[in-house]
Amino acid sequence: MPDTFKAWIGRDESAATGGLTFGAIEPKVFEDDDVDVAIVYSGICATDVSALSGEFGPIAPYGPRVAGHEVVGRVIRKGPAVDHLQLGDFVGVGAQADCCRQCKWCHEDRVNYCPRMTVTYGGSRYQRGAAKGTPAQSYGGFAKHWRGSSKFAVRIPPGLDPALAAPLCCGGLTVYAPLRRWGAGSRRARNVGVVGIGGLGHMAILIAKGMGAHVTAISRGTSKREDAFALGADAYIATSENTRADFKKHRRSLDLIICTINPPELPLNDYLGLLAPEGQLVLVGVVMAPMELISGSMIANATGVSGSIIGTPEDLAELFALAANGGVTPWINKWDMDEINQAIPAAKAGKAKYRYVLVNKDNGGVV
Amino acid sequence: MPDTFKAWIGRDESAATGGLTFGAIEPKVFEDDDVDVAIVYSGICATDVSALSGEFGPIAPYGPRVAGHEVVGRVIRKGPAVDHLQLGDFVGVGAQADCCRQCKWCHEDRVNYCPRMTVTYGGSRYQRGAAKGTPAQSYGGFAKHWRGSSKFAVRIPPGLDPALAAPLCCGGLTVYAPLRRWGAGSRRARNVGVVGIGGLGHMAILIAKGMGAHVTAISRGTSKREDAFALGADAYIATSENTRADFKKHRRSLDLIICTINPPELPLNDYLGLLAPEGQLVLVGVVMAPMELISGSMIANATGVSGSIIGTPEDLAELFALAANGGVTPWINKWDMDEINQAIPAAKAGKAKYRYVLVNKDNGGVV
Repeated sequence: MPDTFKAWIGRDESAATGGLTFGAIEPKVFEDDDVDVAIVYSGICATDVSALSGEFGPIAPYGPRVAGHEVVGRVIRKGPAVDHLQLGDFVGVGAQADCCRQCKWCHEDRVNYCPRMTVTYGGSRYQRGAAKGTPAQSYGGFAKHWRGSSKFAVRIPPGLDPALAAPLCCGGLTVYAPLRRWGAGSRRARNVGVVGIGGLGHMAILIAKGMGAHVTAISRGTSKREDAFALGADAYIATSENTRADFKKHRRSLDLIICTINPPELPLNDYLGLLAPEGQLVLVGVVMAPMELISGSMIANATGVSGSIIGTPEDLAELFALAANGGVTPWINKWDMDEINQAIPAAKAGKAKYRYVLVNKDNGGVV
Repeated sequence: MPDTFKAWIGRDESAATGGLTFGAIEPKVFEDDDVDVAIVYSGICATDVSALSGEFGPIAPYGPRVAGHEVVGRVIRKGPAVDHLQLGDFVGVGAQADCCRQCKWCHEDRVNYCPRMTVTYGGSRYQRGAAKGTPAQSYGGFAKHWRGSSKFAVRIPPGLDPALAAPLCCGGLTVYAPLRRWGAGSRRARNVGVVGIGGLGHMAILIAKGMGAHVTAISRGTSKREDAFALGADAYIATSENTRADFKKHRRSLDLIICTINPPELPLNDYLGLLAPEGQLVLVGVVMAPMELISGSMIANATGVSGSIIGTPEDLAELFALAANGGVTPWINKWDMDEINQAIPAAKAGKAKYRYVLVNKDNGGVV
């Protein structure tokens, strides 16, 4: 008889508006390096809401959808090949649940670029151990339990509140990886800008401060100004429809900018003008329309624009270590996971300030 | 009585078509850290031709124009503050002749970003030591002598033919700086692409090979294919009007691309598709039209596009060291500097294969 887990399941677009149903799913077969995790906390990320709203395509192309990719809980079972985790350890899993272990990127431990990765939920191809007789898909954290490769279950150190670890698993990692890659806080990137103060942006401010950077928050209008300073920002730039004018007196002032917004359009050249020589603008949120890029001033200042996507388990372990003992404290609002059908619509309405975390009280979570 | 130097002077747009006249100029006043250089070789760079054609504005806004910014010769006079050069040393000077010595970038030895830099010719503001009674402008290498700060006169090591050093001073440095910054030949940038095989591109191939990279030359059609392999390229991609199709089977294959062309338009997203994860496309030539940039695949692969401009004297010293003893041998065609009024139009017509060097025989140069 196959194992079953209890989960909040989406079957159609009503999933984002209160239509998740509590029921049974059949996880992948248990392999030697797998763990089972009793889920205690599970973050809600904007992409969960988008996925459950059908923005990325049909909700349940391979069978029932269980979203949630900031999964935190206790290890309750481990395979014989699992050395680095003990039963009872708190672990966190982000947006990636497995990789092929064979490609160049896997061999170089840059698993987040594996072209055959398994995403944490809805992955259409589980490389290894698809449950027999079921479509080979992965299930996320809006559930009582999670099963997957221990390689992607990162141990949460004792000094870090597991509830705070949840939003770090995807949102935090997404901004930490480029902050680290481009040297935030080091001599070459002392001055860091963060565009957008929301789920990702508020963590980018916290993490960049934790890395020793001077942080400038950049946000539309002044409604987020007070929060920005409370988060630790050293400066604030309010933007309007006319970013060229807004940025005029801040030209060449930032070494690195992490852009966390998902706007329909972005005036790229205005943002590039904020960069000091050799500065880099990093997009972590998709801009829907093609952007216009002018080469002249980019060449004159040796600036550039890059993308970034999630990070590796090693990056997440570093971020957990940075966050432990109060180094980085995301602003979270907790919901009992039983209230998920209220939490998802509230997240969709942008009410989180700045990140929702679902709590399984029966697994030991504290609301 | 002020010093005078003999030089080939431009006064109007005829400068690029045979209208340079040989005459006297008055250099800046001689200061304690200056050197006078008897010019032996002087490279012709594409921007010299553009400047003398009036593409960058009036030829002689501050008085007579003396172009040339790949200046090689022997030190014949040095100020009392010059420690690192001896009389008789061969030195090379590139596109930058001075910097303010006061800004953040100067203090960090990133002088190529000094916002008050003096360009090697036609600089409208010589920070220090403008000749009294003359406009404060700088004079380049199409002359018998050059005077300027020893900080920007880089010693040419004995193993390097001074004639070959000339094109390295600007063109070579322009491609070396980004190759070095982005780690060409190291683990993170083993596979390097070079777009365009001309003055800059042919040196980019040579230098990237010298740094240990696997080099793919990318050029329109197949006319440069033979030269590319003769220069040391390991692979060649011929482009057509349809770069998307041309690049399809090469996707994700390059870690770093140096784009040396100056096209009216560039299909940026197609080029970005050639990049492996965390790869970077570096533009060193201006693209006239704004380019269209799509964020999605750039984010998914953490790729990016940056600019780069010249380099520092320290970079040039490194490049000279790399080039010495046959490490990098630019393909040059020599002209007697007395024939400069034929050489400039030939350069304008694209006849160099791949770089022209003017020779002052009376200062010891060998044609």
